Amino acid sequence: MSSQNPAEDIAKAAKAAFEASQLIPPSERVKALYAIRAELETAKEDVLAANRKDLQAAQLEVDAGRMSSALLKRLDLTKGDKWDSMLQGITDVAKLPDPTGKVSYASELDDELELYRVSCPIGVLLVIFEARPEVVVNIAALAIKSGNAAILKGGKESNETAQLVSKAIQAALSKTSIPSTYIQAIQTRAEVSALLQLDRYIDLVIPRGSNSLVRNIQNSTRIPVMGHADGLCSVYLDESADLQKAVRVVLDSKTDYPAACNAAETLVVHESLLPTIWPAVAKALLAADVQLLCDPPTLFALSSLSPPPANLSTHVHPSTPGSYSTEHLNLTLSVTAQPSLAAAIQFINSHSSHHTDSIVTEDQHAASAFCRGVDSAGTFVNASTRFADGFRYGFGTEVGISTGRIHARGPVGLEGLVTYKYMLRSKGETGHIAGEFGSGEGKKQYKHKKIIADAAPF
Amino acid sequence: MSSQNPAEDIAKAAKAAFEASQLIPPSERVKALYAIRAELETAKEDVLAANRKDLQAAQLEVDAGRMSSALLKRLDLTKGDKWDSMLQGITDVAKLPDPTGKVSYASELDDELELYRVSCPIGVLLVIFEARPEVVVNIAALAIKSGNAAILKGGKESNETAQLVSKAIQAALSKTSIPSTYIQAIQTRAEVSALLQLDRYIDLVIPRGSNSLVRNIQNSTRIPVMGHADGLCSVYLDESADLQKAVRVVLDSKTDYPAACNAAETLVVHESLLPTIWPAVAKALLAADVQLLCDPPTLFALSSLSPPPANLSTHVHPSTPGSYSTEHLNLTLSVTAQPSLAAAIQFINSHSSHHTDSIVTEDQHAASAFCRGVDSAGTFVNASTRFADGFRYGFGTEVGISTGRIHARGPVGLEGLVTYKYMLRSKGETGHIAGEFGSGEGKKQYKHKKIIADAAPF
Repeated sequence: MSSQNPAEDIAKAAKAAFEASQLIPPSERVKALYAIRAELETAKEDVLAANRKDLQAAQLEVDAGRMSSALLKRLDLTKGDKWDSMLQGITDVAKLPDPTGKVSYASELDDELELYRVSCPIGVLLVIFEARPEVVVNIAALAIKSGNAAILKGGKESNETAQLVSKAIQAALSKTSIPSTYIQAIQTRAEVSALLQLDRYIDLVIPRGSNSLVRNIQNSTRIPVMGHADGLCSVYLDESADLQKAVRVVLDSKTDYPAACNAAETLVVHESLLPTIWPAVAKALLAADVQLLCDPPTLFALSSLSPPPANLSTHVHPSTPGSYSTEHLNLTLSVTAQPSLAAAIQFINSHSSHHTDSIVTEDQHAASAFCRGVDSAGTFVNASTRFADGFRYGFGTEVGISTGRIHARGPVGLEGLVTYKYMLRSKGETGHIAGEFGSGEGKKQYKHKKIIADAAPF
Repeated sequence: MSSQNPAEDIAKAAKAAFEASQLIPPSERVKALYAIRAELETAKEDVLAANRKDLQAAQLEVDAGRMSSALLKRLDLTKGDKWDSMLQGITDVAKLPDPTGKVSYASELDDELELYRVSCPIGVLLVIFEARPEVVVNIAALAIKSGNAAILKGGKESNETAQLVSKAIQAALSKTSIPSTYIQAIQTRAEVSALLQLDRYIDLVIPRGSNSLVRNIQNSTRIPVMGHADGLCSVYLDESADLQKAVRVVLDSKTDYPAACNAAETLVVHESLLPTIWPAVAKALLAADVQLLCDPPTLFALSSLSPPPANLSTHVHPSTPGSYSTEHLNLTLSVTAQPSLAAAIQFINSHSSHHTDSIVTEDQHAASAFCRGVDSAGTFVNASTRFADGFRYGFGTEVGISTGRIHARGPVGLEGLVTYKYMLRSKGETGHIAGEFGSGEGKKQYKHKKIIADAAPF
């Protein structure tokens, strides 16, 4: 079966595994998840030994100044409860409701002619993600639970670990009726490039990483891309903002976890707040060690702070136009004043990454206009941008946060990994044909009578 | 405001119009639809005069052998009730339920912290379609109803008509509070190429046409593409097929409207039917003037037909491997015999365009396996493939039939032109911050209590 093109072999095997899996009951997928957990438990010492190899190689890179120690830390599977929570994650996903086989539309088109729109897997996923070895397990579990075959490419820094983890996954699958090529891991960028050409076999690419990673992939494939890229979130303090809410929401949005994509990078202040709420918010931010990049009005408003905060001179700087399109990912916040709600909405729409933006306001009309007018996956009222998260939203799991606008937007749960198909069944004596319907004499009319059903009856 | 790049001006204007429209109540969009109808009624004579110019130019092309007379016929807006049904189509779309503002998920995350997932427009659509001038009106109506701005490019053969139609649409919009650049028409492929680069302003490309058009567009843009391409549909006659259903379903699927994308192109016959049902189906197809391209077993089974149909020698030919990946779009049908249901499913999955495929069977298990195993937007039981259609499915309208697998699959109604956003509202005394939740002492837990709501309360 092997061709001259190893990537094509991988893609074909994935598609064949997907198609075969469609005839296997979903309960087998749950069985596979528990088998993976058991297999990983058995392989624990080997996997952790491989992880130590990855860590040693990474340490050399860190010592040579070629890798950040933050990345090294993320590689480490031996720390704290990381291993156990990775295994627990498999059980959690196994216990979630099956996202496939759900009816979202059902209609009786004619006597004994029933239409059902039924959720089903997308097909073969190509998932490209960062160098955290536990993500291999997480993504494999999500793909299996939702009925998709998957080809996984993690960061090269975790290759040794990822290889053993995926060996364990394949060993577990081979104890079920699901083909072991249902989940495959690849190691090189060259394989990714080759796979991106194979739109005949691969149905969706899910890149998690930087904006440039997502754009590079969008540039190189006809396959649909569900991107998980940067977050450039903002908080807007409306004319009617409450002081306490303003301080709390801005501080939490910026400082709760600055490296997250749902942390705020920009603060937009209504001009009328420059002498009142803005200085109070600025003081709280400075006390939390936040660097402020201010436009002239917000900068000027801080010049007369009394008493001046100790770190005013080191932490308050003029912004540049580029400040407002920068994802700082640290304790830095760009600040601008705007003359009106409409101007604030326009500013956010042209500068944010359409991820999550929040308004602090006591005015229902302003809240409503902001939520409709700001063109982002999340529009919040008096709440921190940090709530934008699949677990916090109650999905039980998170594939990531999609920065795309179609199919799945914002935090993506298992629902984002399924599509639907239309099943039409004639129970009539002679089957159903379209030629019998129409406007002429003796022609039948469509009934379009709603059917109440959770699952398709076939 | 005009730049060196006219396409960028168009795209920017569309985005600005979209953003402005988000603050206008949806009722204004319905008002705009009635205004367009009125404006077209006023402009009727001018539009039809422009249409006659297009027709004259087209006639020269037909005379010179450079255009088919079928295409010329599709250009003609003066024939029969085409004009009136174009206007009626606007009213029909106006009367459909608003697809925006619908809540599909709502959860109380904490006391006084409510999350709503609310349907909303996608943004700016770039729609590329065939040379039927009434489609400009149809697509404009769908875009406006669903709250999207749109840039429209029809076939160049209908340019004169399309220009006057879009002038009328803009005139009508200028009588509402919706910006007149909400709907813009472009004329050239060069403009399309330039627009495909502007993923900052354009959110979705909808090409309706050939597979090669869709692939070319997918190759040249980072913008998501919702393709409406060819249909290579098949009918499978299962071992347990009923003779009458087989004849009716195959005949209707092939002959009801052979040029449609939901017409059948391939017939797959279970081997056991070669001496029984297949000859009867073949006789009916030959009587309906259908050309049959047969593989050796199905060909051989017809050699002993008695009495032999008069057109046996002119209408029955050996197939080639290419026959099974050809969309004939006329009275030609490719036929193959397969040894089992599993082989039939595999054959269809590797040859069909994943549009719509039908099984004729009396066996519930076979029906169920076919519907799950065939990886197509529509999987039918004892029903003609011709039912795959937005109107027949009861959507009231049809954007087209998506051959893509994500966002919208199969016949697409207004639902396919919306996405969703998450609105989160804190009604608490002090707003809501993420840092108060977690597993430590004094930390709050998420409630995730379902909220029953049809519309978001803000």
